[in-house]
Formats: sequence, C-alpha cells, structure tokens
Amino acid sequence: MTDVAIGVDVGGTKALALIVARDGRVLGEVRAQTPHDHSDGAGAATAKVLTELIKELCDRQGVRSGDVPVGIGLPGMMRRDGRLAFAPNLQTASGADLGALLGQSLTSSIVFCENDANCAALAEHEWGAGRGIDDFVMVTLGTGIGGGVVADGKLVRGRSGFAGEIGHMVVVARGAACHCGGHGCWERYASGGGLHRLTREAAIAGRLPTLVTECGNAASVRAEDVTAAAARGLDEAVMLMKEVGWWLALGLANLAAILDCGHFVIGGGLSSASELVLPSAREYLVDLVEGYSARPAITVTSSMFGPRSGAMGAALVAFERHS
Amino acid sequence: MTDVAIGVDVGGTKALALIVARDGRVLGEVRAQTPHDHSDGAGAATAKVLTELIKELCDRQGVRSGDVPVGIGLPGMMRRDGRLAFAPNLQTASGADLGALLGQSLTSSIVFCENDANCAALAEHEWGAGRGIDDFVMVTLGTGIGGGVVADGKLVRGRSGFAGEIGHMVVVARGAACHCGGHGCWERYASGGGLHRLTREAAIAGRLPTLVTECGNAASVRAEDVTAAAARGLDEAVMLMKEVGWWLALGLANLAAILDCGHFVIGGGLSSASELVLPSAREYLVDLVEGYSARPAITVTSSMFGPRSGAMGAALVAFERHS
Repeated sequence: MTDVAIGVDVGGTKALALIVARDGRVLGEVRAQTPHDHSDGAGAATAKVLTELIKELCDRQGVRSGDVPVGIGLPGMMRRDGRLAFAPNLQTASGADLGALLGQSLTSSIVFCENDANCAALAEHEWGAGRGIDDFVMVTLGTGIGGGVVADGKLVRGRSGFAGEIGHMVVVARGAACHCGGHGCWERYASGGGLHRLTREAAIAGRLPTLVTECGNAASVRAEDVTAAAARGLDEAVMLMKEVGWWLALGLANLAAILDCGHFVIGGGLSSASELVLPSAREYLVDLVEGYSARPAITVTSSMFGPRSGAMGAALVAFERHS
Repeated sequence: MTDVAIGVDVGGTKALALIVARDGRVLGEVRAQTPHDHSDGAGAATAKVLTELIKELCDRQGVRSGDVPVGIGLPGMMRRDGRLAFAPNLQTASGADLGALLGQSLTSSIVFCENDANCAALAEHEWGAGRGIDDFVMVTLGTGIGGGVVADGKLVRGRSGFAGEIGHMVVVARGAACHCGGHGCWERYASGGGLHRLTREAAIAGRLPTLVTECGNAASVRAEDVTAAAARGLDEAVMLMKEVGWWLALGLANLAAILDCGHFVIGGGLSSASELVLPSAREYLVDLVEGYSARPAITVTSSMFGPRSGAMGAALVAFERHS
C-alpha cells in the first residue's frame, strides 16, 4: 500500500501530471506541451516529456520515481494490455506501449495505462460527481467526446478495453465527416470541435450577424467568440449554444436508452462553458429520452474536478493496480 | 431446485409459452394471440390468456401450475420490481404488474417478469450463440428492435431495469417519426417496420419497378414481397435488403463503439430474412466501426433459438430467481 500515486493525463495538446494522496487530495501539479514528434519512433517523444514531468513531481515530493506507482490516461483506444491501439488525437504515440517505455526511463515496474475518459469516470466515481452512483456515464467534452461507462458500480471495459468511445456513436447517418474516418459521429456536433463547426456554418448562413460584424467577416468568428458572446447574453450566440445543448442531449438520450444510466457527469475542456450548455441539454433531454415520464429523473451535472478528472483517475488506476 | 420452468414470450401480436428443462431442452410449447382488450383494466386480458397457456402446459406435463416457476418476457421497459413501465407495443398491459396478476390466477408465488430481449440475451448466453462470450449484444429484429446487453459476462440492467432499449437510439437526428414519440430511432430503419417503411419509399421513388408492376401499384408492394423477391435474386429487392443491412450495421457499429462488444446475436422475426441482411451488415461494419482494423474481428451471427429465444430466456429467469 502506497501513500501517494502519480496520475498523468495526456491530451492532444497538453499533458497534466498530478501527485495525489489515497484520499484524493492533490499534492502537486506540473504541465507540459504534448510533443508531436515522430523521429524517435512511436511514443518516444511523449515518453521523454512524461518522464521529466514525473521526475519533477517526485523530486518536489521527496520520493524516488521508481517507488511511486504511475497511471497514464491516454486519448484513444487502450488495449487491456496497455498498448495504445488507435489514437486519432495522439498519432505519434499510436501503437506504442507507453507503460513499457516509461518503465524503462523511470526504472519502475509500476506504470499503468488506461483510456483518459475511463480515468475521469473512475475519479468522479470514487471522489466526485459520480460518488455512490452505480449507473452513470462520464462524458468528456474536448476537441472530441470521450466517455467512461459505469454500470452496476463497475467500469465497463469491453472485450479489448475499448469501451466508452461514445463520441463516435453516429447520430446523423451520412453526416459530417469525422477524423476517425466515419461520418455523422456525435463529437462532430456536441464537442468543442462540434461548436467550432456549427459556428462556422451559422456565420456563413447569416445566423450570427452581430458577431460577423464584430469579427470582420464570417470566417473570423471563432467558437470562443460565441461562448464569450453567449456569456454576455447576445441572443444569436445563446441560440447557438442551445443548439449545442440539443446535440449533447441527443447523445445522452441514446446512452440512457441503451444503458439506463440515471446520471451523466460532464467534464473536459468545453465543460468550462457548461453553464451555457447544460441547462438546455437538461431541458431537451425530457423530449429526447424514450419514455422519459416512466423513468426516475435523469440528472446531468458538471464534473467535480473539471480538467483534473483524467489525471486524478489515472492516479486512482495506479493505486488500484499496484495494491 | 426445480426440474422444469415455464417461459412465456409476450409479443405485440402473439404469445409463446414453453416448458423447459434446466439444460435448455424444450418439453412442450403452446401459443395464443395476444389480446388487446382494455375493458377489465391494464393487463387483465393478457393475464387471462397467459394463465390458460400456463395451465395447459402444466396439465400436459402432469405438474401443478402453482409449483412450477414461471418467467414472463414482456416487450417494453420492465422495472426491476416487475412492473411494465412503458410498452408502446403492448399498451393494454402498460403499467400493469403482470407477475402479481398471474400469481393470483395461478395461486403461485413464483412468477417473474423481465424484458423480452433481455430474456433472449440470457438464453443465448446460457445455451446458444452467446455461450462463453463475455461481451455481446442480443439484437431482436421484429416490428421494432429490442436489445439485451451482456458486459463482462453479466446482463446490464441499468438503474431501473430499462437498459437495452437499443431500438430507440437515434441514428438520424430529426429523422423518421417513431411510435415512441421520438424521431430517427434506429428501429425506424433496420427492423421489420423499417423494411416496411423503406419498401414504401423505394416503391414510390421508382426504385422497385419490377415489384410495382407485379403488385399492381407502388402502394401494394409489401416488405414480404421484397424479402421473397430478394430470396429469388431480383436485383432491385437485393439492393433494398442491402440497404437494411447498412442500417443494421450502423447501429451495431454504435454499440461496438460504446460497449466494445465483440459479438452480436441477431434474433427476432426479421431474422428469418437474416441470410439476406447479415452478409451485407457484416461487410458494412468494417467501414462503420471506429478503428475497426485496430480491433479483433467483430462477429455477427443469427440467434440459435430464433423466435424461441425470448421464451427460453424467460424460463431461465424463472430457474435463476427461484433457486
């Protein structure tokens, strides 16, 4: 039994590393840019940056890096054996066994990898907004949408460990092209990337006249301009955020039909705009869930740990697999 | 421990009752039309017909009806307490506690209710096409689409027992109206009802010229005409069955993304046309599943027990809850 563990959340742009106590307290935090350098082979550049982050945290805490269990949350399809099988947002590490690479550089045998959204689900289930709830889905809204499914109190991992790829559930058959190679995936409509796309379309279609004037032309209106304008109450921006809320609710309704989860925890980068999106998502859910009135109420809340959920859950994975 | 159990599958049009041995052998079988009579209160007419079926099976087998555990598979959202909360295809029994009604008429305390597709999943998992497989989804293609999700070897029931309502996963946002009140549900495209709708649309759009000529006019072409014509190799009908296969694959791909199930068992009424649909569904799946090449192969097979899966699984529920 160890007192502390390190959890690292590796995103497409940034990596966040935390050193965490067994009760969930965060004792230290460091960040870095995620490298996208292929030259030394799959995952080598990522492993180098992560090694530095982990050593820095250990130095600060006064512990030897080889003695502390480390969990790594990665954006993509993680095999149960720890290999990253498919990672559209971290292509330079696709196919790599980051656990083994880090084990070498840290001279440690206690490095464990897991999907990032699964990590977030575990953290919220243990310490946060999913505590005590047996059936819920963690939804991370970032550039894409990640997911972690908890059913009957346990994380659903699936045959190979790939469960929870909820962002690639198709909600518009033959719809917008997705970087996964498919079309009409939920994340093309309800994520940060979805908001970006909807913003561009709305600007071109003349549905954001004030913002187009402010930004100079339709092509210059960014998703951030919409969230900022919605926050100050500009009608055209509020309408667009409601549209994102409708798309979010559509996917949540699908998950509720399939899994009968009574609760959703929303995290990830876009969740900073959650007060603009979640109220309308909750309203639309009533119409979109099959037999809503025959069910107990379905709740949708923000994650308790926001952008830290993934790294905290990675630390939890390290605690659990090491014990 | 009992030697035999009775399983009843109550569909929107027919009820099938089986008496089943613990090893899955079917010892006797009776059928009846499902009544749609409201006059005596919710579920009363259904309970009367089921009581007769059960008594007939018991008489034949020479056992007292009160001594044999009975499982009832029902088409709709079954609460964990056995009450049918929402049943668009069996509205006269919606809200009824059929277990209690049958308990009274059979003077038995061992009547158990479960969703019909969950029953089918349990039967296929125990004795059939899902045997030994920890992560699979049972898909019943009838008028609608029902589902039973098995994850890590266990049926996923969800918070209230409503999990597996996969037919009401939306795959076409703002698509075809569904009897559940929603729009664009998967079952409007890939079930028997979906084939019916696609047939009508294709006939009107001039894509079934031979069948329209044979049947007299576009409005007269039925789904059965398409399956019969496809079976004899008529190109325009084969194309339409492939389209149904594409829609089937689309929903399966969504389930694979969410659950990472490696196997699908297809049952229900439309599965009699499975040799016309499943080959194309398997082909389309390769393109539709996110990161297909990074996964082990996903298999799609017909149910082993066909239209009997539900009733056999209901008997299994009776065995398990009685023991």
